[in-house]
Amino acid sequence: MNSLTEIAGVLRNSRKVILCGHVMPDGDCLGSVAALGAALEQMGKDVTLASPDPVPEIYGFLPVMGKFLIGEKPLSGEYDTFIILDCSVPERLGKLKSLLERDMVFVNIDHHKGPGDFAGYNYIDDSAAATGEIVMDLIDLLNAGITGDIAVSLYVALSTDTGSFQYENTTPGTLKKAARLMEAGIHSTWININLYEERPLVILRVMEKALENMEISPCGKVAWTSIDKSTLNSMAARDEHTDGLINIVRTIKGVEIAIFFREITSGKFKVSFRSKSRVDVRLLAGKFGGGGHVRASGCVLEGDVDGIKKMVVAAALKEI
Amino acid sequence: MNSLTEIAGVLRNSRKVILCGHVMPDGDCLGSVAALGAALEQMGKDVTLASPDPVPEIYGFLPVMGKFLIGEKPLSGEYDTFIILDCSVPERLGKLKSLLERDMVFVNIDHHKGPGDFAGYNYIDDSAAATGEIVMDLIDLLNAGITGDIAVSLYVALSTDTGSFQYENTTPGTLKKAARLMEAGIHSTWININLYEERPLVILRVMEKALENMEISPCGKVAWTSIDKSTLNSMAARDEHTDGLINIVRTIKGVEIAIFFREITSGKFKVSFRSKSRVDVRLLAGKFGGGGHVRASGCVLEGDVDGIKKMVVAAALKEI
Repeated sequence: MNSLTEIAGVLRNSRKVILCGHVMPDGDCLGSVAALGAALEQMGKDVTLASPDPVPEIYGFLPVMGKFLIGEKPLSGEYDTFIILDCSVPERLGKLKSLLERDMVFVNIDHHKGPGDFAGYNYIDDSAAATGEIVMDLIDLLNAGITGDIAVSLYVALSTDTGSFQYENTTPGTLKKAARLMEAGIHSTWININLYEERPLVILRVMEKALENMEISPCGKVAWTSIDKSTLNSMAARDEHTDGLINIVRTIKGVEIAIFFREITSGKFKVSFRSKSRVDVRLLAGKFGGGGHVRASGCVLEGDVDGIKKMVVAAALKEI
Repeated sequence: MNSLTEIAGVLRNSRKVILCGHVMPDGDCLGSVAALGAALEQMGKDVTLASPDPVPEIYGFLPVMGKFLIGEKPLSGEYDTFIILDCSVPERLGKLKSLLERDMVFVNIDHHKGPGDFAGYNYIDDSAAATGEIVMDLIDLLNAGITGDIAVSLYVALSTDTGSFQYENTTPGTLKKAARLMEAGIHSTWININLYEERPLVILRVMEKALENMEISPCGKVAWTSIDKSTLNSMAARDEHTDGLINIVRTIKGVEIAIFFREITSGKFKVSFRSKSRVDVRLLAGKFGGGGHVRASGCVLEGDVDGIKKMVVAAALKEI
């Protein structure tokens, strides 16, 4: 691994830079790309912001998101440096992975634990709550100023990857960085409203239905709910409108495993798992051919909804 | 108004101190009472922690909450100093208001805008995100140490009154204070799980009902919901189980004012207001004899529920 000072040295010598995050982009990778890109522009570099997948609607309030080249579009350009942000493995570059076959300098900056040394220059710090934290330190090393635009992008990165400074990854340093970003003159209320308080009405209607369908095991440690396709259709709800519903189930006192059954097509269900603090739900999903992380995983099952629920809940109860 | 240094001087001379927050206590008043109480105990004072109403179950994870004397119980004690925290008016002291008739020193510390000069010594700072922020400065002035117990109480105060550092009242100073509390060695993940991810099942059942009763104005800028007493009784739900429901209504895209009508006793309603970013709902509550903050206020109204809703929603629409 290289030091962040070495990375800064490499970037000072770059001229035509492309920056990219991972597939299915989130606030941390988009904010990190936008912030570091703006800093390099300040330094007179020719900068291209890229993303293998489109920017989700929720980040549309940030003007800079309109500057991202999406999918294979950036492949037609010529660059001397490729900065890869928040990607644990090259596969997470999706359509832009082929850039790694070109003859240029590769810089990989990430906070995910893993091998992470796939580029020429690598800086991985899994104690950082977000890649945005590392980018902020790097911008300081580059002696670029934290402008208002950069501060907004970095605040989005920090806030979204820490669940608004609630998750385990949040450190005193994270909060101090957020304080400094606020001092740079950002309107954090405007950012937070756009990130957390502008939900389409249909999300609350789907939530009502999910609460109505919610069940809990006699021991109180497993809770689950479901939404069928016809209900979603009748509300003109899209899949993205069910995002986060499972977290509501997890917030029940005493519940360790939350499960959400969402009908994708008739008789085919996306089953999502979340655990609070003990159970490894990656193993649970694995029993049904799925996978994921320790606290968040999923699988796809086909059949009769009641049969699927019975089988999956029984397996979850065995993990308790 | 007095300076915080003057307040510190008064407290240095106190011997038998009672501290109390407001009726229907929240994380800020409970955390502030607990933290300042612990600091004064460090200084060798005889300290009584009090609350006019019981401590909500959600704060039960904090061992110090078991030390609070509830309702009229503390009235049998003798004190030389009464510290009132987070109470905008004496009426918010509920069953403990009669303490103000005694012959002792009264100290009032608050972050709510208002007359606020009802005590002998008053310190009001409405730029503070939480009364806990003022208490933290005061503890520093008293040269008492921020112990682990004090840090936990203050973190609860700051986090709950800022919606986990999201609301408009959050300043760079709030985040720096939270960072310092983390550095004092608190386990913030444990606090956050207990505050936000251990909700009694009944809260989700009340939420389901509130979503079912939710209405939105044709312009989409005002949304409201209600819960009647018989529904709450049938679920064995207490008042505290309706806390935060209004915030869900506010998160609807396009909604500027959220209103929640909760029946306290037959025909008597607590009406709560929240605004997103423009409307001063303190003025709105003021029209009905209530008060509060710019973004969060409330009042109490008696009469027919439909009539009250019509009147209040019409007044809210006028503010848009």
